Amino acid sequence: MKKSFIRIVDGGICVVDDVEASGLKNGKYGLTIIKRENSIGAGLFTSNKVKAAPVIYTKKIISDGEISIIVANSGNANCFTGSGGMADCDKMVELTSKLLNIPKNQIAIASTGVIGRTMPMEIILPLIEECSKNLENSSKASKDSANAILTTDFVSKEFSVEVTLLNGKIIKIGGIAKGSGMIAPNMATMLCFLTTDAYGEKDILKKALKEAVDLSFNMVVVDGDESTNDEIILLGSKNKDNSILTESGGIDSNFQEALNFLCQNLAKMMAKDGEGATKFIEVHVFNGKSQNDVIKASKSIVSSSLVKTAVFGGDPNWGRIVSAVGYSGADFNPNNVSISVNSKDKTSYLVKNGEILGFEDTSSLKDAEDIMQEKEIKIIVDLNNGSYEATAYGCDFSYDYVKINAEYTT
Amino acid sequence: MKKSFIRIVDGGICVVDDVEASGLKNGKYGLTIIKRENSIGAGLFTSNKVKAAPVIYTKKIISDGEISIIVANSGNANCFTGSGGMADCDKMVELTSKLLNIPKNQIAIASTGVIGRTMPMEIILPLIEECSKNLENSSKASKDSANAILTTDFVSKEFSVEVTLLNGKIIKIGGIAKGSGMIAPNMATMLCFLTTDAYGEKDILKKALKEAVDLSFNMVVVDGDESTNDEIILLGSKNKDNSILTESGGIDSNFQEALNFLCQNLAKMMAKDGEGATKFIEVHVFNGKSQNDVIKASKSIVSSSLVKTAVFGGDPNWGRIVSAVGYSGADFNPNNVSISVNSKDKTSYLVKNGEILGFEDTSSLKDAEDIMQEKEIKIIVDLNNGSYEATAYGCDFSYDYVKINAEYTT
Repeated sequence: MKKSFIRIVDGGICVVDDVEASGLKNGKYGLTIIKRENSIGAGLFTSNKVKAAPVIYTKKIISDGEISIIVANSGNANCFTGSGGMADCDKMVELTSKLLNIPKNQIAIASTGVIGRTMPMEIILPLIEECSKNLENSSKASKDSANAILTTDFVSKEFSVEVTLLNGKIIKIGGIAKGSGMIAPNMATMLCFLTTDAYGEKDILKKALKEAVDLSFNMVVVDGDESTNDEIILLGSKNKDNSILTESGGIDSNFQEALNFLCQNLAKMMAKDGEGATKFIEVHVFNGKSQNDVIKASKSIVSSSLVKTAVFGGDPNWGRIVSAVGYSGADFNPNNVSISVNSKDKTSYLVKNGEILGFEDTSSLKDAEDIMQEKEIKIIVDLNNGSYEATAYGCDFSYDYVKINAEYTT
Repeated sequence: MKKSFIRIVDGGICVVDDVEASGLKNGKYGLTIIKRENSIGAGLFTSNKVKAAPVIYTKKIISDGEISIIVANSGNANCFTGSGGMADCDKMVELTSKLLNIPKNQIAIASTGVIGRTMPMEIILPLIEECSKNLENSSKASKDSANAILTTDFVSKEFSVEVTLLNGKIIKIGGIAKGSGMIAPNMATMLCFLTTDAYGEKDILKKALKEAVDLSFNMVVVDGDESTNDEIILLGSKNKDNSILTESGGIDSNFQEALNFLCQNLAKMMAKDGEGATKFIEVHVFNGKSQNDVIKASKSIVSSSLVKTAVFGGDPNWGRIVSAVGYSGADFNPNNVSISVNSKDKTSYLVKNGEILGFEDTSSLKDAEDIMQEKEIKIIVDLNNGSYEATAYGCDFSYDYVKINAEYTT
């Protein structure tokens, strides 16, 4: 739900004045450079034990100091590439540093693509050269960046907002993202780069970012595999006039809500553009006993292969939904649960307080069948067991998911 | 690995002399009755919070006393069926009790099929009448039983062995099973009925059964959804001459190994017959730091949608394998891991001590590609981090999995 202090604006990452960007594709490979000198950077990274070389590299760079440039490539993940992987990171950073005259320790890198193959440096390095010549602050530059990092996803993902802080000051936040298969849990296979002219110390920015990511990317499930390459980087300003700290020392709640809203919109774009997706699924679980319970239940539903194939087939299958809640580990009594499906302005109850309506009420079943034909479907589950709620995002499971991932290319 | 004290024999559940069985199909519905008067019963049941009515019913029956009959139907799970569900259990038991003159409290029931629809008693009750007329001790009767409980699986699953106990006595164990989609974790969507002429107190039998199930059905993953209806029942003899207790009070290790071996064979049959499966996958993870680590790692690989689609596509994708170990939670160092694939007598290393062989050694990559074309593929992962090992079973992810589960039938 968008609040009145948030305005959706154009510009993507270039919504922030002193950000420059460029992006290029070369066949299945792509590259973007995002430049914003002396930013305060906050980053979140994959929790997979197998971490790509650029993840290991950038994690250290971000914790050590300021960030002026992000270089990100698509087509090859530079992961599980032995000692050569880290050397390739160095080469990318070295060239960028030389071309743009930025200290090496202010350059973050990220990669996405196939795992376990050496980086094609003969393609990546020329892309860095090209991109470094075309940096500019424009909507087109942001869009080019968003396009350059796509792999098996089709639609570039950008979002930007203006937000009025509690003190009346107006600041901006912009973002681009990629993500398609291997999404979940814990923000798997995604890259997301965010810019803002707001100011906060590193720890404050990271705290705000963590909350936004928990409510957005960490609630997206495409296939349950977790990537080795996830990176989310937020570049904040050093302009203390735009501080997001309130007088009492907390994070400005308007800023936090705007960041959450922006990340949720990027997360939904990812789910809609999931590999082979034909339908977008939003699962809202409420009245749970704890936050953990509603997160587990909503993610279990949106991850279930059987729910996902049912949605693909247009089947309002309450049995598979309740079963997924049942094995999620969430506390609830099946006899008290209510389940409905919704699309656009139409809602149909499948189960009310444990009683299945489809048995007797054929009109409600007919409505549900109509809803399941829509492209965007909401599954709503009332656990009737407390007051917590969570929303998870995903997509259906189609023949094309299998096709995309069964293709063997060396 | 079969030991010399185990012999594979014919007969299925009727390998035990005083077991009678029968099974019938009627369209998508099926029913079996298994009779063995005054058995000592041990049972294991789904851990899904949403439990089918027959699961709730039978759990209590088994813990209370002796079991003389199992009645199991396919086509409808009698789950999430409100108060009517339990009443339908009663009707099934009542009719069986009357027809076969067995006390109601000695009759266990089980169901498998669609969730959330009322039982078609006009079909189930006549099937009970028919089956109760045809009970006999024969290989055919066991096969009919195994067929009657199938749903979306195609191949009936039976196995039986003779085992020489440590004291020289020879006893028999037989089993039938069904299971196709929704397999994993924790023995999800499966029914398995075992008979033996061995004797053990209820607690001893249950302990032996638990170990066998942990090493077999609990290591099978088809799609990661967990069923509401899983039941495994072992019917033991009251003949104390056939005791499985050793003089020191432990469980006869030959009996335990035979039971494990039998359950593992039924589990493999399930994986091979998984919904839409075109290939069988066995994942062997060894040299792990703890038992929990190797179980998590092997199941994570065999559950990964990306590994499963790669196997379908014939792709020896070491990147997806190592990534699945990476997010499994198992402790290991990616730089020390070795990965190979095997089929029949051919083995090919993809990764040795963290170094990818496919990069330089094209002959090893070619071998791996050949192996991936086989119908039965073993993925072997050496974590190089300890001495524990585990084996998980699964199948590939094909277009047909989506097709089977996207079909909407009211």
